[in-house]
Amino acid sequence: MDKMGAESGNNTPMRRISESTIRRLSVYYRQLAILESEGYHTVSSKELARREKLTPAQVRKDLSFFGSFGTRGLGYPTTELKAKIAGILGIDMVWHVALVGAGNIGSALASYKEFAKQGFEINSIFDNDQRKIGSNHRGITIEDIETLPQALKKHHIEIIVVAVPASQAQKIADIAVNAGVKAILNFAPINLKVPPDVVLRSMNMSMEMEYLSFYLCNRHKIDVPGKG
Amino acid sequence: MDKMGAESGNNTPMRRISESTIRRLSVYYRQLAILESEGYHTVSSKELARREKLTPAQVRKDLSFFGSFGTRGLGYPTTELKAKIAGILGIDMVWHVALVGAGNIGSALASYKEFAKQGFEINSIFDNDQRKIGSNHRGITIEDIETLPQALKKHHIEIIVVAVPASQAQKIADIAVNAGVKAILNFAPINLKVPPDVVLRSMNMSMEMEYLSFYLCNRHKIDVPGKG
Repeated sequence: MDKMGAESGNNTPMRRISESTIRRLSVYYRQLAILESEGYHTVSSKELARREKLTPAQVRKDLSFFGSFGTRGLGYPTTELKAKIAGILGIDMVWHVALVGAGNIGSALASYKEFAKQGFEINSIFDNDQRKIGSNHRGITIEDIETLPQALKKHHIEIIVVAVPASQAQKIADIAVNAGVKAILNFAPINLKVPPDVVLRSMNMSMEMEYLSFYLCNRHKIDVPGKG
Repeated sequence: MDKMGAESGNNTPMRRISESTIRRLSVYYRQLAILESEGYHTVSSKELARREKLTPAQVRKDLSFFGSFGTRGLGYPTTELKAKIAGILGIDMVWHVALVGAGNIGSALASYKEFAKQGFEINSIFDNDQRKIGSNHRGITIEDIETLPQALKKHHIEIIVVAVPASQAQKIADIAVNAGVKAILNFAPINLKVPPDVVLRSMNMSMEMEYLSFYLCNRHKIDVPGKG
């Protein structure tokens, strides 16, 4: 994707959105769910900002990116705004997710209820361990990783979760990219390389731990940003 | 910590370091391990930069923050630089880590070999499930979460990993903070609140998934930063 000014089909320049705006949409969505459960029918940008330690201007700017919400003086209707953000984030639909790697982390992810709640349905699992292939994990039969290229297409997989050892992860990413998968969530402790039209998010637990130990070692010497 | 100009004991102003610099130190460390395994005795900032798609100036700037490394024209000695960075990151020592929550994710983390490799030793595990308390997980007896305040001190815990449900996570963080813990790795899907002298990193897997679905929904309409 051309960051300098890619164009959409109708020749209007594509607007750029920052990673932190997308992240804040997820945060607003969660806060709106809390507000809803607390019985608030409307919420002001001021209150939403206060709860997330942001400025009201930031909240309004983030939301205005996606059109006009709310009424001046009345605030945003809670349930409606939550539904709008769900639509923007794409969590009002079902996604076909494949998990590659059924080790400790992979198996835990396959059982992670938060994913299913948001429409991320892990409906296929792959491994290279002959003792695991063909066995059943919570209703899903573990498939042979060798069949990945065909299976990704057959199951219409849109997102893959990579939970294989670091040494295998790039090979898996390449197979997925070749099969047309455009979104990868990576748990292997390695920087994967993917083409610019593929979105990759990496969860590097070791690096997060290193951030903590760095802080513990240096906090009296260096001004370290603390909160993650 | 005062971001505007905290002072260290000797009255020299504390230098600030960015989150991305710390992250890149982890990346350099991993790349140096690869270079070492490939037999390179020295490496130039240019080569390190090329492998991580950074500029040589960026590499030199990051490393110069921690003192003077390498020799102009000769590059950095691979093994020595790797050891220096390990020291800076604090992964050349053993950290006492407690895991709170022995569910699917928690159990997987307790078995995660990468942590132990880098000196993060999970040597105590806590849960509130009576069926789990007292049972053995890979040599560690699961303790009652009710004993957490005393146990954190008794085991000299420096880092806690929070893998409890969202509704319990803030309570656990508060207990840890009160017990003097200064570093928290959080897997619960909630924004924890901690004092400014406590470092918190959160692994929000659902939010990362939402980033992917956002991208898949909007990539033809909006210029979305792809790589994580």
